[in-house]
Amino acid sequence: MINIIRLSGLYAPTLKEVPSDAELASHRLLLRAGMMRKMGSGLYSFLPLGMRVLDKVRAIVEEEMDAIGAQKIVMPILQPAELWHESGRWEAYGPELMRIVDRHDANFCLGPTHEEIITALVRNELRSYKQLPLSLYQTQVKYRDEIRPRFGLMRSREFVMKDAYSFHATQESLQRTYDDMSGAYGRIMDRLGLQWRAVEADSGQIGGKVTCEFMALAEAGEAEIAHCPCGFAADAEAAECLCEPTLHDVPALERVHTPGVRTIAELAAFLGIPATSTVKALSGKDAEGALTVLFVPGDHELNDLKALQAVPGFTLLNDDEMSTFGLHKGSMGPVGLPEGARVVADRSLQAVASWVVGANEDDYHYVGARPGEHFEVSQWADLCQVRPGDRCPSCGLPLQGARGIEVGQVFQLGTRYSEALNATFMDEDGAERPFLMGCYGVGVTRAMAAVVEQCHDEQGIVWPSSVAPAQVCVIPLTVGDDLVQPAAERLAAELADLGIEVAIDDRSERAGVKFNDADLIGWPIQVVLGKRGLQAGTVEVKHRRTGARKDVALTSVAEAISFAHRAARTGAVSPDVYHLMFE
Amino acid sequence: MINIIRLSGLYAPTLKEVPSDAELASHRLLLRAGMMRKMGSGLYSFLPLGMRVLDKVRAIVEEEMDAIGAQKIVMPILQPAELWHESGRWEAYGPELMRIVDRHDANFCLGPTHEEIITALVRNELRSYKQLPLSLYQTQVKYRDEIRPRFGLMRSREFVMKDAYSFHATQESLQRTYDDMSGAYGRIMDRLGLQWRAVEADSGQIGGKVTCEFMALAEAGEAEIAHCPCGFAADAEAAECLCEPTLHDVPALERVHTPGVRTIAELAAFLGIPATSTVKALSGKDAEGALTVLFVPGDHELNDLKALQAVPGFTLLNDDEMSTFGLHKGSMGPVGLPEGARVVADRSLQAVASWVVGANEDDYHYVGARPGEHFEVSQWADLCQVRPGDRCPSCGLPLQGARGIEVGQVFQLGTRYSEALNATFMDEDGAERPFLMGCYGVGVTRAMAAVVEQCHDEQGIVWPSSVAPAQVCVIPLTVGDDLVQPAAERLAAELADLGIEVAIDDRSERAGVKFNDADLIGWPIQVVLGKRGLQAGTVEVKHRRTGARKDVALTSVAEAISFAHRAARTGAVSPDVYHLMFE
Repeated sequence: MINIIRLSGLYAPTLKEVPSDAELASHRLLLRAGMMRKMGSGLYSFLPLGMRVLDKVRAIVEEEMDAIGAQKIVMPILQPAELWHESGRWEAYGPELMRIVDRHDANFCLGPTHEEIITALVRNELRSYKQLPLSLYQTQVKYRDEIRPRFGLMRSREFVMKDAYSFHATQESLQRTYDDMSGAYGRIMDRLGLQWRAVEADSGQIGGKVTCEFMALAEAGEAEIAHCPCGFAADAEAAECLCEPTLHDVPALERVHTPGVRTIAELAAFLGIPATSTVKALSGKDAEGALTVLFVPGDHELNDLKALQAVPGFTLLNDDEMSTFGLHKGSMGPVGLPEGARVVADRSLQAVASWVVGANEDDYHYVGARPGEHFEVSQWADLCQVRPGDRCPSCGLPLQGARGIEVGQVFQLGTRYSEALNATFMDEDGAERPFLMGCYGVGVTRAMAAVVEQCHDEQGIVWPSSVAPAQVCVIPLTVGDDLVQPAAERLAAELADLGIEVAIDDRSERAGVKFNDADLIGWPIQVVLGKRGLQAGTVEVKHRRTGARKDVALTSVAEAISFAHRAARTGAVSPDVYHLMFE
Repeated sequence: MINIIRLSGLYAPTLKEVPSDAELASHRLLLRAGMMRKMGSGLYSFLPLGMRVLDKVRAIVEEEMDAIGAQKIVMPILQPAELWHESGRWEAYGPELMRIVDRHDANFCLGPTHEEIITALVRNELRSYKQLPLSLYQTQVKYRDEIRPRFGLMRSREFVMKDAYSFHATQESLQRTYDDMSGAYGRIMDRLGLQWRAVEADSGQIGGKVTCEFMALAEAGEAEIAHCPCGFAADAEAAECLCEPTLHDVPALERVHTPGVRTIAELAAFLGIPATSTVKALSGKDAEGALTVLFVPGDHELNDLKALQAVPGFTLLNDDEMSTFGLHKGSMGPVGLPEGARVVADRSLQAVASWVVGANEDDYHYVGARPGEHFEVSQWADLCQVRPGDRCPSCGLPLQGARGIEVGQVFQLGTRYSEALNATFMDEDGAERPFLMGCYGVGVTRAMAAVVEQCHDEQGIVWPSSVAPAQVCVIPLTVGDDLVQPAAERLAAELADLGIEVAIDDRSERAGVKFNDADLIGWPIQVVLGKRGLQAGTVEVKHRRTGARKDVALTSVAEAISFAHRAARTGAVSPDVYHLMFE
């Protein structure tokens, strides 16, 4: 890398205006700070400062892969359709797969992921259990034809991923590499300066059994997370729900006239009880079309995936179907359901002896409806979407809620692809067996956006030192004079000699413009050189993250920054310890 | 990078068999050495050792770009068709442009080059002459839908290029950057260890005026080069031809019966004169369809591009057209041509007073045909393809011939793209003017193949130290014993500590297998550790390039290699000075 970045010649056009279609902070700020530009829907160019950040994110990811013995390769972006037919994903992947026909009418796709091609790469050459385990990784451009690309780098159509694949003879070996990868992913998140959680997740398109997502915590995230100080964290879609409905204890079944009451909120208000004491009913059909009514605590929502797991083929009824079955929307309950209707209830309701429910008649509800006495529950199951305040499945304390950006994911694929593509090895007994496989991805461009989502303020980006385009920006308040500019140049050179990446704002701009741009671009440390200070032998050092300022002697400022920088690189938990300079 | 490469776990399957479709040494050897694999027609994966080489080539190219102040960016591979319509290349580029339609029926191409997109990137943001000059570069994957991909990395469909673009207010500024880039390209070729020539070239598809190709000299090259010890070098297609036909002096025009003579060789043999004393005729039509006959010295070929330049629209006649005009194939000449036929002759024939030519009658030729007396030449022009032995246009000495692989090319584009895409800046007078532009490309994957073409022998690849997957391979002849393996491990660690990249062949393979693989893969230095040598305190060092071997004390071998390695890195012309160890 170049040692000193001169802003006078740098192509980093900053913008005052916020682009109108940029909803997220990362999208707005990367555009405004002159780090990237949109070239088409979901297509971006990275300008020099953005490129430096991207290269650093990539280097951190690759270093952690090398450190666990994964071997770097690169595979084509353009992938022959034949391989995707072999895996069955050519059709299954749908319109997000970008397809292309060459001049000889052969079909290809632009790879969104590389399971097929890496399986084809090793089959016939990785032949013996003695060559296993093997982990290969690449950093490559990927494609997903999003129906509505948006949020800048968060959902672009062309993006950079690090994807790794591992091959194993045994489940133990797969588990070991999966654990190694998970450890490396944690270190990557730490080195990127991210607040993160590793969450249990669903495997989606890739199709494996054990999987975990590495989420950067951010309001802008698309994923909902439930987590606990004990360390537990899960995708809210996938987490087990341990909620505690409360008992509204009445001695006998009582039919209450509830005129106009349709919702749980209205019912709770009418009866003067908490929503947690009510029970919500959801009517649907099972795979055979039989009426199935699900019951969950009134303050919780049904989780669709769990409903499907409990009742295979479950679909909610629409209004017409409800009428056909003689059901009353807004006052359904377990007592007096049509003949043959099946009742499935959330496990948490097992502890509730007396339910508040609809009476299957408009404007009427029951209190004191007792399972086993007034109605039968044919199945208890985990049905609810987890909420903040539910008990942690690991330690029992109340869960916290958060939103997250999926930066990385690890999967145990098993033999899904090796069987489909007939990729086998000879095991110790001489038998041909399909590989066990794992795959492991980090969204490199998305990680960059996630860092900005976590690290910004009103003024602009606040880069962690590990991925900042440079650690320090030297700002001479005047250029072309005898005192300030030469001092700034000498200081920049001194910092560069100490191994610190330095920018110098040698533009003939007003001080205000330079300060605004420095805050917008987000250099971790700014060193401001003015005439008056220099006459007294001092410069002002500003810590971008905290806004702390301090006058430091010109003669010692480089050494002080270098000390904080070295401390940051030698294993402190947070990669930015420049604040030590201000204490 | 990882410090020690362990061959026991490395994914580098070497092949004994030569893949049948691999015609070139680079193609064969990169496959055989386990450095790359074919994934489809013109599509390759790079395995770990090939990846290391590719990363090194890329790093050398990028370092030289950074050193001349070019700024690194990256632009999308997927390019909107609109931009190519603006430049007029969407149609003009033809079937080599890979086109793709997205889910919303919008058209894109996979960029073979990025003139359009970079011009769109800077227009409206690069606004003032004060921001100029500016040089931007990227290393990106490119596409060309070759009708018949072949020769491995030499003509693949997906390949890696470093492409740079510069923007200028004046021609002087463009020339300065063009010169800087040319200098950087020379240093890149040197650092890759290539024998090369910078040759004058034709600008092809890109469409500029001043251009130069950086050719790696190699028999496998597709380009013909004419060069001279004085420093002159040109693409044989583009070079001025200064040839010297010889005079067959006869006093008067004489019609000679030449039964069966059709070719120049037959004519020269029949008359007992050198081919240089004969004159070859080529009949064609000009843009209006008028008969035009071109004459060149008998030992030279017509250069089609020069013919077009001399006679706009020139096309050769086919046999039917020749009959229609009453011409006799194999005995055409300037005397007695059909009425109105135009005679255009190579300039070199101006010095030849008496020509040996066809008589426009089967089995008859003329000797002593004198221009100005027996026929008229209406135009003298440079028509010939240059040949080794022709005079150098620069110094007059005989030219040498060579074949080359085009690794890099630099162009002065002028305003070709800035005008088409309406990319302008405000000059010092306040006038809007289109940028002057330059563009500069290096084929990164092709450079890797070019290195192998120059650096290989019967046994395999001979990597220059600068791009070798590692500089040294330590080969313990036995593994698992008390003496050899621990000594090898210690030596590898010692070399790594000295900053040298080391591989260790810790596989349980026979010595012969290890030697063959080491030669095939092409580590510059092999250090062989055997029991007998170690008992005497020595190891054998082998220099891959020269095959030289030497016994060196185990205690001093690391320091000796390190010395040669440091010498190589501190500016010697050749990046490989390990041979010093063997003197």
